[in-house]
Amino acid sequence: MEGLEQKLQDKFSFWEHLTQSQKERMIANTQEVTYPKGENVHGSKRLCTGVLLIEKGALRTYLLSDEGREVTLYRLGEGDICMLSASCILKSITFDVFVDAEEESRVLLIQSQTFLQIMNENIYAECFAYKVTADRFSDVVWAMEQILFMSFDKRLALFLLEESEKTGSLELSLTHQQIAKYLGSAREVVTRMLKYFVAEGLVELSRGGVTLLDPEGLKKLL
Amino acid sequence: MEGLEQKLQDKFSFWEHLTQSQKERMIANTQEVTYPKGENVHGSKRLCTGVLLIEKGALRTYLLSDEGREVTLYRLGEGDICMLSASCILKSITFDVFVDAEEESRVLLIQSQTFLQIMNENIYAECFAYKVTADRFSDVVWAMEQILFMSFDKRLALFLLEESEKTGSLELSLTHQQIAKYLGSAREVVTRMLKYFVAEGLVELSRGGVTLLDPEGLKKLL
Repeated sequence: MEGLEQKLQDKFSFWEHLTQSQKERMIANTQEVTYPKGENVHGSKRLCTGVLLIEKGALRTYLLSDEGREVTLYRLGEGDICMLSASCILKSITFDVFVDAEEESRVLLIQSQTFLQIMNENIYAECFAYKVTADRFSDVVWAMEQILFMSFDKRLALFLLEESEKTGSLELSLTHQQIAKYLGSAREVVTRMLKYFVAEGLVELSRGGVTLLDPEGLKKLL
Repeated sequence: MEGLEQKLQDKFSFWEHLTQSQKERMIANTQEVTYPKGENVHGSKRLCTGVLLIEKGALRTYLLSDEGREVTLYRLGEGDICMLSASCILKSITFDVFVDAEEESRVLLIQSQTFLQIMNENIYAECFAYKVTADRFSDVVWAMEQILFMSFDKRLALFLLEESEKTGSLELSLTHQQIAKYLGSAREVVTRMLKYFVAEGLVELSRGGVTLLDPEGLKKLL
């Protein structure tokens, strides 16, 4: 793969501390994978997918209950590193997450066992892995605070505004079911709140979508 | 303090990688502190308390909303290390937690700035700090799953059984308000569910307490 070493060097700050043999092993055990939109990347059948470096696209990490309820923890985009898809090699991490491709995503996938070997040999690599993990810890606590402390009207308004900003459009192609998934809520709860927003003149509903009519009004809810 | 070096050596696995000067600095900047039961240890006025090594007692870590609602994240006991009370020195940690002494607690308190200096000088110390933090990440995700996925009757039953096991008694001295705090819920919700448990013959209520009448019945709820 062209430029692979450069890519790894740019993103893995411990690269300069690796021996030549470690670098070669890491390069030899990295492959480029493309996941179609919606595909599960980690967590259903794949128990220890590997370390992911996202080159293009977006991955969503979530918890899944026994009853099939999802709670989104965070999203990763271009240039981000996903360590929890290799949680089997992190002794301190005892929980499982699911990772889906939210859009078509191209990633560099580093084999878990190779990464583990290098972590065991090299304290800088180990430290890096745990630091990236701690970044996600912060994301998860943020999500938890959103879910537990923020009232649902605020959370929904914030979500719609953020999606609108992300896509650069006031028309969002999202079903109530999808919104519920993202917010870790139930579809009925989303539908009820959206109807309230419609009544307030804040949004308009269409088949499979929500249009923001009054972004300023939504902002006032925050 | 007698035996201080031994205590630090036993609990901080990076000790052997420290230089003599680093060891001396760490010893010189560690003090023994006793917190009375109920006292806030970290988070209200103390912005960066320091790294805590618990010698005796129990600390409870929780999130606090703007409206004063608490959600318990995890508890630490004898021999545990609390890093989030020094989160100011962990760049990856961007959230704030509160820590209270749940009973009278004796801790070794290592100054944040000293620990930061040693972390900056010594990759093993840095790595250790992030690994301890990742342990807590697992605790927090566990708590989140409990709160979001488990129905409240299960959570309350589990809590009562665990408290009973911990104290070795079927009589628990806990107000509904305290139980609500521990479960990140509201007092009314706890009272309602306890009344349901009374009606089912599972527990008996007394002034400031709950007595388990049918632990086996409570276990069936799990």
